[in-house]
Amino acid sequence: METAKSSDVSGGTLPRRVGIVGLGLIGGSLARALRALVDPPEVLASSLEPAELERAVADGIVQRPATPEGVAAGADLVVYATPPDATLAFLESHAKRWRLGAAITDVGSVKRALIARAQALGLGARFVGSHPMAGRERAGYAASRPDLFAGARVWVTPLGEEGESAAAMVEALWRAVGAHPLRIEAAAHDRLVAWVSHLPQVAATALAGALADSPYEAGALGPGGRDATRLAASPAGLWEEILLANADQLEAPLAALESALTALAAAVRARDAAAIREAFERAARWREL
Amino acid sequence: METAKSSDVSGGTLPRRVGIVGLGLIGGSLARALRALVDPPEVLASSLEPAELERAVADGIVQRPATPEGVAAGADLVVYATPPDATLAFLESHAKRWRLGAAITDVGSVKRALIARAQALGLGARFVGSHPMAGRERAGYAASRPDLFAGARVWVTPLGEEGESAAAMVEALWRAVGAHPLRIEAAAHDRLVAWVSHLPQVAATALAGALADSPYEAGALGPGGRDATRLAASPAGLWEEILLANADQLEAPLAALESALTALAAAVRARDAAAIREAFERAARWREL
Repeated sequence: METAKSSDVSGGTLPRRVGIVGLGLIGGSLARALRALVDPPEVLASSLEPAELERAVADGIVQRPATPEGVAAGADLVVYATPPDATLAFLESHAKRWRLGAAITDVGSVKRALIARAQALGLGARFVGSHPMAGRERAGYAASRPDLFAGARVWVTPLGEEGESAAAMVEALWRAVGAHPLRIEAAAHDRLVAWVSHLPQVAATALAGALADSPYEAGALGPGGRDATRLAASPAGLWEEILLANADQLEAPLAALESALTALAAAVRARDAAAIREAFERAARWREL
Repeated sequence: METAKSSDVSGGTLPRRVGIVGLGLIGGSLARALRALVDPPEVLASSLEPAELERAVADGIVQRPATPEGVAAGADLVVYATPPDATLAFLESHAKRWRLGAAITDVGSVKRALIARAQALGLGARFVGSHPMAGRERAGYAASRPDLFAGARVWVTPLGEEGESAAAMVEALWRAVGAHPLRIEAAAHDRLVAWVSHLPQVAATALAGALADSPYEAGALGPGGRDATRLAASPAGLWEEILLANADQLEAPLAALESALTALAAAVRARDAAAIREAFERAARWREL
């Protein structure tokens, strides 16, 4: 965790008042990480779960509990740490509430629809997409932790040159919590995460789904099996949204996985030692790069 | 790591001279764990890699470097920490070298062929199979660590009642290094590990194989993707042996995985929200049990 003063970060400056809509794993962890800074900003936050918001205030990581509208109107940087569909809805309903000069961002795993909507709403000067490649299979405020973003890559998607100062503020936020922001275009982002994030999620879910057909419980897994199935505990509702939003980009990765599995399973059934070894060597070469 | 005196463990007693054939990840970790005991036994060991053996002696975890034959003849408990095919060959070639009363075990992931061979060789009173559910995707002495077995389950497969005292000695070994030995019959073991160990390995290898078709490198993975593909870095030669040895028991697990993946991929292609959610909920229920 970076503990430099928040104003020390290069590029933009973290504003003194940060708003967070949603205090789940990502929003809660962001609030905790901001609180851990040497010179923490004031955090306004809202949650659909009143108990979570009370807890965050009691924990000292949220200074001002508010409604989503109150957060939108009261902060110089507003982070929508909500599921993708909820974030889309907030962009529309909050567009007239944000402060002059405030920067707006999200944390979602799919970017094209959101960026297109922000573009259509004329938000190019203030909305910047964010996707932190950090997370856990557990959801909710209870799973949040101050070091969730330490060392993580965060994909940042500005809408265009007019959004430069908003992008710098959003990048300052991620740097302040120890993450590494990197810019990417929305379509390139969605193609990338279909392979490196959504496909591993599908593979882990399919594996745990197959194991659910077995006579064995998860307690019988060794450390390797636990790691391979860890993502399968991820929240179903969130992933339903993500996979539907990126279904077109998932075509090629899904076909590649089905084909790799079919080939390896066929090699095992045929006791084809050379084919098994080749599949393992190719996979290990990629993984160890 | 358990640091009780080795003679404190319940059941059998860890002998004063333990032999380890093979100083890779498992053999090296076992030697390290034994050295870390309050009252460590003397360790005789051999390795096909002379540099590894020299290193282990220099590290102070092996007191007596030896040939495999020297280890077989010099210890009261001999552990074959070798690949499955090498272990099978040693059982035959060493059968007349072991000390009177010595117990013999292995560390392999598939048990039927080995147990049948030991049975045929008349080793029922001294050979006991072991399979520690511990490991890493890295191989070799360099990857070994003293806490590899801490908290791990170790499947123990005696040949029959005549092997009771050998089984107790082998169980004492695993308890001494902090593991939890549990007895199981060879066929039941191989059916179990086909599901909970070999299938996750196949899934991770297929996933990394698919990702090798993408334009992206492993560095683009987030924490979830890294976990889901971690096993793909496992040694190809070892897994070729394991999957071939357990190919019959892998039929049902492989079919279940192919079917789960096909169904989930079809649900994504069809934008079938209910089917996606159901697959995720079912997988999460199993994983969180």
